[in-house]
Amino acid sequence: MSYFDAASAAPLHPVARQALQASLDEGWADPSRLYREGRRARLLLDAAREAAAEAVGCRPDELVFTSSGTRAVHSGISGALAGRRRVGRHLIVSAVEHSSVLHSADAHEADGGTVTQVAVDRMGVVAPQAYGAALRPDTALACLQSANHEVGTEQPVAAVAELCREAGVPLLVDAAQSLGWGPVEGDWSLLAASAHKWGGPSGVGLLVVRKGVRFAAQGPVDERESGRAAGFENLPGIVAAAASLRAVRAEAAQEAVRLRELTERIRARVAESVPDVEVVGDPVRRLPGIVTFSCLYVDGETLLHELDRAGFSVSSGSSCTSSTLTPSHVLRAMGVLSEGNVRVSLPFGTPAEDVDRFLEVLPGAVAAVREKLGAPAPATTVREDVLVVDALGKRCPIPVIELAKVIGDVPIGGTVRVLSDDEAARLDIPAWCEMRGQEYVGEQPADHGTAYLVRRVS
Amino acid sequence: MSYFDAASAAPLHPVARQALQASLDEGWADPSRLYREGRRARLLLDAAREAAAEAVGCRPDELVFTSSGTRAVHSGISGALAGRRRVGRHLIVSAVEHSSVLHSADAHEADGGTVTQVAVDRMGVVAPQAYGAALRPDTALACLQSANHEVGTEQPVAAVAELCREAGVPLLVDAAQSLGWGPVEGDWSLLAASAHKWGGPSGVGLLVVRKGVRFAAQGPVDERESGRAAGFENLPGIVAAAASLRAVRAEAAQEAVRLRELTERIRARVAESVPDVEVVGDPVRRLPGIVTFSCLYVDGETLLHELDRAGFSVSSGSSCTSSTLTPSHVLRAMGVLSEGNVRVSLPFGTPAEDVDRFLEVLPGAVAAVREKLGAPAPATTVREDVLVVDALGKRCPIPVIELAKVIGDVPIGGTVRVLSDDEAARLDIPAWCEMRGQEYVGEQPADHGTAYLVRRVS
Repeated sequence: MSYFDAASAAPLHPVARQALQASLDEGWADPSRLYREGRRARLLLDAAREAAAEAVGCRPDELVFTSSGTRAVHSGISGALAGRRRVGRHLIVSAVEHSSVLHSADAHEADGGTVTQVAVDRMGVVAPQAYGAALRPDTALACLQSANHEVGTEQPVAAVAELCREAGVPLLVDAAQSLGWGPVEGDWSLLAASAHKWGGPSGVGLLVVRKGVRFAAQGPVDERESGRAAGFENLPGIVAAAASLRAVRAEAAQEAVRLRELTERIRARVAESVPDVEVVGDPVRRLPGIVTFSCLYVDGETLLHELDRAGFSVSSGSSCTSSTLTPSHVLRAMGVLSEGNVRVSLPFGTPAEDVDRFLEVLPGAVAAVREKLGAPAPATTVREDVLVVDALGKRCPIPVIELAKVIGDVPIGGTVRVLSDDEAARLDIPAWCEMRGQEYVGEQPADHGTAYLVRRVS
Repeated sequence: MSYFDAASAAPLHPVARQALQASLDEGWADPSRLYREGRRARLLLDAAREAAAEAVGCRPDELVFTSSGTRAVHSGISGALAGRRRVGRHLIVSAVEHSSVLHSADAHEADGGTVTQVAVDRMGVVAPQAYGAALRPDTALACLQSANHEVGTEQPVAAVAELCREAGVPLLVDAAQSLGWGPVEGDWSLLAASAHKWGGPSGVGLLVVRKGVRFAAQGPVDERESGRAAGFENLPGIVAAAASLRAVRAEAAQEAVRLRELTERIRARVAESVPDVEVVGDPVRRLPGIVTFSCLYVDGETLLHELDRAGFSVSSGSSCTSSTLTPSHVLRAMGVLSEGNVRVSLPFGTPAEDVDRFLEVLPGAVAAVREKLGAPAPATTVREDVLVVDALGKRCPIPVIELAKVIGDVPIGGTVRVLSDDEAARLDIPAWCEMRGQEYVGEQPADHGTAYLVRRVS
C-alpha cells in the first residue's frame, strides 16, 4: 500500500513513537502535583512547550497545548473575538479556510456577529489588497491559513499580517498544513496547528497567543494550560508531538526538495497522460507534498475505490466522495472543476518508486471509471434553437458527461440547456466550459432544478 | 516510591499500554476516509465504542469519545442545558461536585442561568429528599457525581435519578471516580467519565447521552463523534481507554475487596496512631481505594513534602497545598477540618506492604510538622473576660495552633476570641471545636479580618 493522504493525517514519525513510549512511563501523572511523579510530568510538559515554542518561533508562555488542531482553532477564534468584543464583532476569513475556521465563523454569525469571506483567485490565492480592503473599524479578528489543505497553495501571510498590524487587527494563522515545514513568516498574532499533520500523534494541537493580544477564553476554564485549554493534559501525546516536530524540522529542507520534485513529476505527468484533466492549485507557491487534480467525466468516489484497489490511498474534495454531496468549498471558491477530484499528499519519506507506480496506474483507473459511466444515452429534445439535456435526478459527473456528448450536435453559436438538480453542476459545467473553450452563458431557475446554458463557440 | 494518588491519575494499565502501542500502527489514519488505512481506523474506533458502551451499559450510538473527562462534563452540561432551554435555565449541582461541574455552573450563571447547590452532610452525602426539593418546573438539568473525588463518598445516584425522572429532568452523572469499579446504577440520562482515572491514557474522556434526551451541542461542531466532540479522534488513546476499561472491570470485584481492606486498615490505624486527626468521608458507602483524613495543627503542604521525601505520593484538599489558598470546597461543604488534609487513593494492585510502610511513616511525619510549627508564642491579651488571640497575618494551621495553646488559660465558661484573616480559619476553628468538645460561638467582623469566638466548656 502507498499512503498518499498526509494532509489528512501523517503516519506516526518514528521519533514520535519513541517519545510516546518513553513518556508513558514518565508522563502519566498530574503535572500540577508536587510529588515526584507530578514533578517529572511537569518537567516533560515544560520541555515539550519549550521545544514547540522554539519551532513556532514564540515564547513558551505564549503557547498552550490543546486536544486537536480543530480545538486550537475553535478556542483561538472564540477567545480572540471575545477579547476584542468592545472593538466590534466583525470577523474576516478567507473563502478557502479549513472547516474548523468556517464552522467557528458560522457559530459567530449565529451568535449575532458578522463575517466577511475574502475571495481567492483560480490558484486559490488570497490577494493581500482584497484582504486589506475587508478590514473595518469594527473588525475584531482576521483569519488566514498558511497554506491550503486541499490544493497546497501557500497564502501571502506576511503581507496580510502587515496590513492587519497597520489596522490594529490581530491575525490568526491556521498553520496546520505548513508547521512541519517551517515557522510561519510575518507578524501574526495567533497561530493554531495540529500534531498529527506533521507526524505527531492525534489528540494534540497547539494554540499560540502572542503577548499583548487581547484574549478571553470562552466556556468553562480551569487552571491548566494558562486557563486556555481545560482538562488534564494529554502528556505522552504532547511530548511525542514536540519531539516529532523537532525531528521533522531537522529533515524538512532536504525532504521539501525531494517531495517537490515528486509532486512536480505528478503535475506534469498527469496533465500528459490523463485526457481532460485539470491540475489545480498554485504551481509555484505551494507546499512541497501536495498536488491536486480533477478529471472530467469521472465520479471521484469510484476513482478513489479504483485507486484503493490498486494500492493507493488518496483523498478527494469532490462532491462525489462527501456524504453531504456538497462540492468542496475550496474548489468552488477557486472556480475550478470539482468532479473526479483527487488530492495526492505525500508523507515524509515517500519512495519515488511509489509515485512512479501511481503514475502508471492512474490513466487506466481514470479510463476504467469513464468507461463505466459513459453508457447512459442522454435524454435530449430540441426546443426552438436550443438543445435541452434533461439530467434531472442524475449526479455528478453525469450532467457534464451528457453535455459533452451533445455539444457537437448543435451548430457553432447554438446553445445547450442542461437541466440538473445536482449542486455540483453549478461548479462543474462552468469549469468544463473553461477547459473545453466553450462559452458558459449562465444559469436560470427551471421547473425542477436549474437550467445551465452553454453556447458552442468552437 | 509508593504512588497513592490514583484519584488524580492512575498509572497506565498494562493492557492500555499494549493497546496503545498496537493501535499506533493501525489507528493513525482518519477513520472517516474510505481507503484501507481509514477503514482499519474506523474498525478500531467502532470496536472501542462498543466495548466502552458495554462497560457503561448504554448503546454504542449513545456514547462519544471526548478529549478528557473535563471536556465531557463541559460539553455534556452545556449541550443538555441548551437542549432544554425552552423549559428553563435552572441547573442543580451538589456542593461537592468536581471543579469541572462547578466551573460549568459558574459559566451558566455568568450567562444568565440560575444554579442551586444541594448541600451534603458531614459524610459528604447528598440526601435524595433535599435533592428532590431543589427540582423546579424550570429545571433544565441536574448533576450528581457517582462518588466524590476527595473523600470517596458514594452518592445515592439511583434514588436521585428516580426523583429527576419523575420530575422530567435529565440527570447528568459525573462517573469519573467510579466507572472503573462498575456501571452507574439507576436511570440517569447523561454520563461523563475520564480514562486516566481507570488506568487508561490521558487525553480521552467519554460522554453518554441517552436516546431521547434533548441535547444541542454548543460551539462550533464538525461531523466527528456525532457532532458532539469536534476534532480528529485521538484513536490510539481511545482504543487504549476502551481496552483498559474492560481489563480493570475484569479485576474490579476482587480488587475492590482487597483495596477496601487496605483503606479500612488506614482508617483505623490513622485514628489510633496520629493524635488530633479526623478521618473524613462515609465509612461504609465509599469507593474501595480512597481514604481521607485531616490533621490538626499541621500545614498540609509541609506534610505532603515530608511524605514525598519518605517515598509516598499523596494529595491534599487542604488550603495549604493550593496555590489559591482557598480551602477545598468539598471539605468546606462537609463542614470538616481542612487543615493538614491528606487524601490517600490507592491504584489497582497497590501492595499491602506499601500501605503498612505508610502507616509506619505517617505518625512521625505528622509529629515532625507539628514540631516545626509549634514554636510561635501566641500574642494574647485579656480584654474583660475574654482572651484575645491575634493571629492576623498568620496562615493555616497557625490560628488553630494558637487557639489550642491558650484554651486552657481561660476558665470553663470563659471565651477565646481568635482574630484571623486566613479564610481557612472559618472552616477549621469550628471543626477544631467539634473535635475537641469546645463550643463554637460564632464569628464577628473585626477591624482587621474576622473574630472567631470559642467558649471553653471542658
